[in-house]
Amino acid sequence: VTLTENDQPELKLEQELEQDAICLADIERIAAEKLPPEVWDFVSGASGAELTLAANRAAFDAVRIVPRVLRDVSQCSPASTLLGHPVSMPVATAPVAYQTLFHPDGELAAARAAKEAGIPFTVGMLSGYSIEAVAEVGARTWLQLYWLRDRDRTVELIRRAEDAGYSALMLTVDVPWMGRRLRDIRNRFMLPAAVRAANFPDPEKGSEAHRPAPGNSSVAAHTALAFDPSLSWTDIDWLRAQTSLPLIIKGILDPRDAVRVAETGADAVVVSNHGGRQLDGAIPSIDALEAVCQAVSGRCEVLLDSGIRSGVDVLKALALGADGVLLGRPLMWGLAAAGEAGARRVLTLLAAETQDALGLAGCDTITAARELRTIAPAHTQRS
Amino acid sequence: VTLTENDQPELKLEQELEQDAICLADIERIAAEKLPPEVWDFVSGASGAELTLAANRAAFDAVRIVPRVLRDVSQCSPASTLLGHPVSMPVATAPVAYQTLFHPDGELAAARAAKEAGIPFTVGMLSGYSIEAVAEVGARTWLQLYWLRDRDRTVELIRRAEDAGYSALMLTVDVPWMGRRLRDIRNRFMLPAAVRAANFPDPEKGSEAHRPAPGNSSVAAHTALAFDPSLSWTDIDWLRAQTSLPLIIKGILDPRDAVRVAETGADAVVVSNHGGRQLDGAIPSIDALEAVCQAVSGRCEVLLDSGIRSGVDVLKALALGADGVLLGRPLMWGLAAAGEAGARRVLTLLAAETQDALGLAGCDTITAARELRTIAPAHTQRS
Amino acid sequence: VTLTENDQPELKLEQELEQDAICLADIERIAAEKLPPEVWDFVSGASGAELTLAANRAAFDAVRIVPRVLRDVSQCSPASTLLGHPVSMPVATAPVAYQTLFHPDGELAAARAAKEAGIPFTVGMLSGYSIEAVAEVGARTWLQLYWLRDRDRTVELIRRAEDAGYSALMLTVDVPWMGRRLRDIRNRFMLPAAVRAANFPDPEKGSEAHRPAPGNSSVAAHTALAFDPSLSWTDIDWLRAQTSLPLIIKGILDPRDAVRVAETGADAVVVSNHGGRQLDGAIPSIDALEAVCQAVSGRCEVLLDSGIRSGVDVLKALALGADGVLLGRPLMWGLAAAGEAGARRVLTLLAAETQDALGLAGCDTITAARELRTIAPAHTQRS
Amino acid sequence: VTLTENDQPELKLEQELEQDAICLADIERIAAEKLPPEVWDFVSGASGAELTLAANRAAFDAVRIVPRVLRDVSQCSPASTLLGHPVSMPVATAPVAYQTLFHPDGELAAARAAKEAGIPFTVGMLSGYSIEAVAEVGARTWLQLYWLRDRDRTVELIRRAEDAGYSALMLTVDVPWMGRRLRDIRNRFMLPAAVRAANFPDPEKGSEAHRPAPGNSSVAAHTALAFDPSLSWTDIDWLRAQTSLPLIIKGILDPRDAVRVAETGADAVVVSNHGGRQLDGAIPSIDALEAVCQAVSGRCEVLLDSGIRSGVDVLKALALGADGVLLGRPLMWGLAAAGEAGARRVLTLLAAETQDALGLAGCDTITAARELRTIAPAHTQRS
Repeated sequence: VTLTENDQPELKLEQELEQDAICLADIERIAAEKLPPEVWDFVSGASGAELTLAANRAAFDAVRIVPRVLRDVSQCSPASTLLGHPVSMPVATAPVAYQTLFHPDGELAAARAAKEAGIPFTVGMLSGYSIEAVAEVGARTWLQLYWLRDRDRTVELIRRAEDAGYSALMLTVDVPWMGRRLRDIRNRFMLPAAVRAANFPDPEKGSEAHRPAPGNSSVAAHTALAFDPSLSWTDIDWLRAQTSLPLIIKGILDPRDAVRVAETGADAVVVSNHGGRQLDGAIPSIDALEAVCQAVSGRCEVLLDSGIRSGVDVLKALALGADGVLLGRPLMWGLAAAGEAGARRVLTLLAAETQDALGLAGCDTITAARELRTIAPAHTQRS
Repeated sequence: VTLTENDQPELKLEQELEQDAICLADIERIAAEKLPPEVWDFVSGASGAELTLAANRAAFDAVRIVPRVLRDVSQCSPASTLLGHPVSMPVATAPVAYQTLFHPDGELAAARAAKEAGIPFTVGMLSGYSIEAVAEVGARTWLQLYWLRDRDRTVELIRRAEDAGYSALMLTVDVPWMGRRLRDIRNRFMLPAAVRAANFPDPEKGSEAHRPAPGNSSVAAHTALAFDPSLSWTDIDWLRAQTSLPLIIKGILDPRDAVRVAETGADAVVVSNHGGRQLDGAIPSIDALEAVCQAVSGRCEVLLDSGIRSGVDVLKALALGADGVLLGRPLMWGLAAAGEAGARRVLTLLAAETQDALGLAGCDTITAARELRTIAPAHTQRS
Repeated sequence: VTLTENDQPELKLEQELEQDAICLADIERIAAEKLPPEVWDFVSGASGAELTLAANRAAFDAVRIVPRVLRDVSQCSPASTLLGHPVSMPVATAPVAYQTLFHPDGELAAARAAKEAGIPFTVGMLSGYSIEAVAEVGARTWLQLYWLRDRDRTVELIRRAEDAGYSALMLTVDVPWMGRRLRDIRNRFMLPAAVRAANFPDPEKGSEAHRPAPGNSSVAAHTALAFDPSLSWTDIDWLRAQTSLPLIIKGILDPRDAVRVAETGADAVVVSNHGGRQLDGAIPSIDALEAVCQAVSGRCEVLLDSGIRSGVDVLKALALGADGVLLGRPLMWGLAAAGEAGARRVLTLLAAETQDALGLAGCDTITAARELRTIAPAHTQRS
Repeated sequence: VTLTENDQPELKLEQELEQDAICLADIERIAAEKLPPEVWDFVSGASGAELTLAANRAAFDAVRIVPRVLRDVSQCSPASTLLGHPVSMPVATAPVAYQTLFHPDGELAAARAAKEAGIPFTVGMLSGYSIEAVAEVGARTWLQLYWLRDRDRTVELIRRAEDAGYSALMLTVDVPWMGRRLRDIRNRFMLPAAVRAANFPDPEKGSEAHRPAPGNSSVAAHTALAFDPSLSWTDIDWLRAQTSLPLIIKGILDPRDAVRVAETGADAVVVSNHGGRQLDGAIPSIDALEAVCQAVSGRCEVLLDSGIRSGVDVLKALALGADGVLLGRPLMWGLAAAGEAGARRVLTLLAAETQDALGLAGCDTITAARELRTIAPAHTQRS
């Protein structure tokens, strides 16, 4: 009985979301109201003047799809595979650190939502729950890695991931250090005491991310100490030799780098500008996608990250050559809005929108979507 | 005497419109004031973030015409033919369902206005008056078809159209189901009891479109049940075999589909993104037009739909290769503003504007208009 | 003494203008305050949605000049020739009808300002003062012609112009009738009784332009009666045979028409969209200029009209190939602001700005300006 | 003790800046509040309609960088050389006249900040402190020259620069006279009595720049008298013969001019539109850069001026081929905000941002940055 009573508010919340949240922007608004301002800034902000953050969206909106018609879409489905395994739609969750910032259930809630949605969940190296705890949720899980100065810690974490049944490693390669996120610096952003990097137990008093960093974001100060900016191609070879898990390289924008990733034998590249949070002024990832896909030419999968806010965005990424996309901030909005129910609502909406977009574009499968034509404003490449 | 008295308010209304409504946007404003908000949303809204709705207009406005001069335009006339029959201007009305939403006289009033204007009237399959009732108006009439799960109903309707003297069938091929029109979903939009799909008598209590659909637009829920998303090329052949009426295929944007339509022996394609109401993110139809015309290369007529708001827009469509255009929402604004008088005013204005634009561009005929040059912002096609 | 006293306010006005009006936009603001709203609308408005009006300015602003340096500009001068005669700058006034709308001295004041500035003054066929009265000012004068239904009136006017020492005829070819200028239609714009087309004495009660025209601008109704929309190439030959005065053809945008004008032996074409007042949606004249210049290839002069608001605009027109420009609305702003003193201020400013722009672009002469490079946003031509 | 006490407010100011000013725009806001409005207008305004001022920023923001990854950036450094001498970052200060307008310490404070930052300081010919006084600061100093009508004064100043140990001469070639800066003209801008061109001692009562100039900026009136608009290529040869100091030519936008500068044996060109203060309508310097670099092809160094507001902008300039950039207005904001401490903060931020941008783009050196790819909106060149 108690359990039922406990469930009631959750259920009510979920029903309210179904009534009121009919696109991801609705959930963004709810999250913006619920979160403390500095946490909202941390998740929604980006680096510098936030030009790339804005450009990510503008570039998506400027892409136009040329739909097909008169093709039976009665069995239309966004189901696909990622890294050779079936997914309900060509989406995985993006690695986001410290998801307990947004809801106490953090990565557990998000992983449960991903599991229910039938898509892989990427655990951030700096997750609020340990990778073992997340694994128990039973979703298909990928582990994201930053390149730590302490290489032993990385190896140890990989071993733990192997033991816990993780399906892939995703190495983020665009963070030699954190970009200058001015909102966080102005807010002197620090992690609340209760939010911890669970994979690396800190002392009671917390890490540098929990202590004031003069004139800086404490999270940035922490990562500056922990991350190794010397990461280079030889390290990929070293990493490749440490494990037989499939390897995804995240943060590629230049086709020359994409080719080289493919040559390392990696299984996928993620075309990403880190949601505008690293180099402000970087090319929108959707504008970088086509050249990367052409360069890679099928030698590994290509995923698109940074800017996905709807099923139409998924379709645009596919039409420009992606095998799938990563979803970052919107899932955090869902957590902030209503924990697991919110995360579920985000993924339910995205799946419905993606199927809707597929069918309205005359595509019964993801494969068909990848043959759609698009137009976009003309650019000049300079090199 | 009574009749005269009854006529007075109508006449007064028409005179007021002539005074105050001198462009279609004026009539839009009147309609927006007169209609219940949820009906206004139903007619003016579109799917998703309404990006394609906005892009339709932006793309039209970005096209610039290079006028000609020193060509006798004293006999300038927008008269032309559509499907081989004379029209006063290269315009037909677009199929719009449930026109009784906008005025009790609905399709009857709109058809009368079209008849008076000398252009074809397209009856929506989901019309508020039966196709026979509309036929009695005596306009040149085309019947629009959605692809129903119940194929017999379609055949029966075609027979009725043949009997009632319809001149063409227009099959809408971009609606396997209705796009996600967020305004309608938020409004829980339902048809008023008095608004019925007259061609398919419902039970007294109405159809699904008259009953709440949890978390959805009732109209969308209704069409999801009724429409058949398996429509494909083979069905066109089947349809072609059912009737000798001319066939128009509406909802084409990709030139490859246009070529294939032409090869089925259809008489016309309509380049349309359904006014932005189906795939949000679809290419503006005016941006898709030229490639379609080149691909079709005269094998069938090409009509342009989605975004026509003035005679200059008609001219732009012609200059980019269209044989004619369909006019949708503005006619509904006219109905909402003043019933038949409002619809008449819309068509009178459009005809005047089209002739004005033709003459000012140095064209005495529609044929001349199709040889005008235009410029537009550069785009890159990606495929 | 009285004369001196009369002069004082004029002088004061002129000094105030020198203090307060340091660019043409300043004078526009003064004019907008001084003129009755419906006269302001008449001069500043355009046709339709006024898209071409706005595009004229946007297109100018989007052109960027690549200046030269290290070329002696100590003797820099905008002096040039137009139609073979010296001008202080490559500018003539554009034909504007009924200049007495803006100031009682109308064309007399404007012609005096042009004379003092050392540039040709174009008298509108529908001028507020007779062409003989304007000729007495002693400026170099050109006579603008509309194509009247009554051809004898045109011939008579040409004879009068020859007798009065006019230097050229400028035939406007883009007005088979007036464009739909919605502001004027809404205002039911009529000429005040005191404003007359002085070259064609009306009866005491005035012309159609002085009487209400139901649902229309009275000026538009008047011109619809007077102008001949059958004007065509053969009429140019006829006109050419009537007079030995140099002939300027105004209203050319398509290079094919420009070539044909050159072949008629005309002395100049004016690339113009009539300030956005005829075909709304027409290409900005600055965007049409380069193709016209290339097509004409020096066989006649090319002048640019529609959008000139500063010396930098003059420079841009030259850099894109024009031999000179016409200045329309700004001169009327000057008249409205302060009569002759206002018109003088406009031309003084424009001359100063043009010389300034020339020198800062490293050009000592107009010839040098025509060799400057420019960049502009990429467009696609469709035909 | 007094000294320490005097230092306290400075130190407090500097600490406040470190807290509150985390990007150059922050310092701009502080300066805008502190400066008298007419001085703010003088430094932040530009000529004409300020289109080029705005375009400079818009063009920078429209350039997108394609970052590289997986390249060791642990030793990433913006250190480089300019004119063969080491610099901490590829930045020099731009010549700005009368820096005592912004802070009593003017050029002394700015030079101290540049010295501490390890970059060259460019003394304006019209500096508030004499070139000898600035030299005593001990920064690497370049002397900017305008081309004076009185050539002896120039020669004398060059001799003094040689004696004072200056490292280079920078000749500004885009100011035959000052552009029409409307804000200054409206403000009747005059130099305060205390602000003097220290290199050319004026009489007690000051120069023309200190006296009202009817209807003009007094500074513009002064320079019109002093500067020689006849400057041409032969003068460069003459100047070259006067001194063995390295020579930088500032104000180049056309590649043909850049080639010719290189052929004179000059050591560097500065691609600049004078911050939008000379020809309004001039091409943004960042849009002119690539063509200049290709034309010069390494024969001399290419510096970029006009629009640098962040380290990302520095990176964009490098990626498009520049060897370095000049920083103008932001350093003045720093002086206005807090004198030397403010100038230091500006350069500290810019250095940090530049290093950050370099590393996040996967570049360990300036050389690597120059091989980055970029995209930008397509333009058409017309000539």
